[in-house]
Amino acid sequence: MRIDIISVVPDILKSPFEASILKRAIEKGVVEVHIHNLRDYSLGNYKQVDDYQFGGGAGMVLMIEPIDKCIRDLKSERDYDEIIYLTPDGQRLDQKMSNSLSLLKNIIILCGHYKGVDQRVRDTLITKEISIGDYVLSGGELGAAVLADAVIRLLPGVLNDETSALTDTFQDDLLAPPVYTRPREYKGLEVPEVLLGGNFKAIEEWREEQAYLRTKKLRPDLLE
Amino acid sequence: MRIDIISVVPDILKSPFEASILKRAIEKGVVEVHIHNLRDYSLGNYKQVDDYQFGGGAGMVLMIEPIDKCIRDLKSERDYDEIIYLTPDGQRLDQKMSNSLSLLKNIIILCGHYKGVDQRVRDTLITKEISIGDYVLSGGELGAAVLADAVIRLLPGVLNDETSALTDTFQDDLLAPPVYTRPREYKGLEVPEVLLGGNFKAIEEWREEQAYLRTKKLRPDLLE
Repeated sequence: MRIDIISVVPDILKSPFEASILKRAIEKGVVEVHIHNLRDYSLGNYKQVDDYQFGGGAGMVLMIEPIDKCIRDLKSERDYDEIIYLTPDGQRLDQKMSNSLSLLKNIIILCGHYKGVDQRVRDTLITKEISIGDYVLSGGELGAAVLADAVIRLLPGVLNDETSALTDTFQDDLLAPPVYTRPREYKGLEVPEVLLGGNFKAIEEWREEQAYLRTKKLRPDLLE
Repeated sequence: MRIDIISVVPDILKSPFEASILKRAIEKGVVEVHIHNLRDYSLGNYKQVDDYQFGGGAGMVLMIEPIDKCIRDLKSERDYDEIIYLTPDGQRLDQKMSNSLSLLKNIIILCGHYKGVDQRVRDTLITKEISIGDYVLSGGELGAAVLADAVIRLLPGVLNDETSALTDTFQDDLLAPPVYTRPREYKGLEVPEVLLGGNFKAIEEWREEQAYLRTKKLRPDLLE
């Protein structure tokens, strides 16, 4: 898989791809992540990429011209399955969407910043608008990192244990059951007896019950 | 405001706080962000902070002892309003929650990693569990960055224009209207006439109508 991220503040994106699972996925060659500085596609001497909004109001807006140029350059090199814009009014990212995005070959993620991008970008250049949640961030950069992480960890060969992602919360519309590790007792707090016994059938039943009870209590909507 | 973030992979969190709005907020002294490496609180010679789960199964679990030690150290220095754990089964972050968190003085954010944390941490040390969305990430680090960004940009003095956050999507349960910037015409795509006229009453009415229409189309649930 190849992910191209377009940003006006590419520095934000450095460290998330240089540590832990994302770093290993890139090193293994499972995914390529290319981060493009929108300013490299600005036209004037001032490297301008944003301007005031027409009609007045607070906040700068990213201009269509450098974005169009950057996307055209990328599209001239290869075909893209989706050109994604991260925006709080997009379709909400969930595990199912992560699963389907993980099957794509090449995607572009455009990060808005400040007040957003010129609407004409959204109307004509973008194929999919995604929101990571009902809140506003300074820009799309953290959203891009979140989206990339949610997708990349599902690619075959990324997690050490292939079954690990399959037992995650949401993969079967249930929250994950509680987990415990050593020590068996800490300041009077004990690990549930059943997990210590080695009766794997009982453990499996306990986990299923706990997952169901937790989902019913915290997220009954997932059971509908 | 002071935010303490506890992580086993603190490197992920470097660049998000070293660029753009979060960097400026820290430089202005509006917020202090302290990132703690959980390994500094491990007890043995091996700097162990995680272990296999009791009962078997894929994925490592963060141990209670180093987390307890780190939180106790922090609490011995000052009072905390909330000790937050980021988990996909937590209460979903939205703009209202960001608004109320932005009024707090000191918070701790604990990032899970791998398969999560020992349930006893959640039962006894955590005061609030938050999810940034219905998807699974490699760890809580990106969630911590998202939460910090959503909250910090609301603090007085962070955004250059005080009114900017007030016109954001969700602040009035409406999506934001479309925005446009120069040029007026790009490859035949034009900016709506009303925004160019200087009739601010008409512009205001157009924006309100667009915000309502967009919300009705994309997120009718917000209007209920």
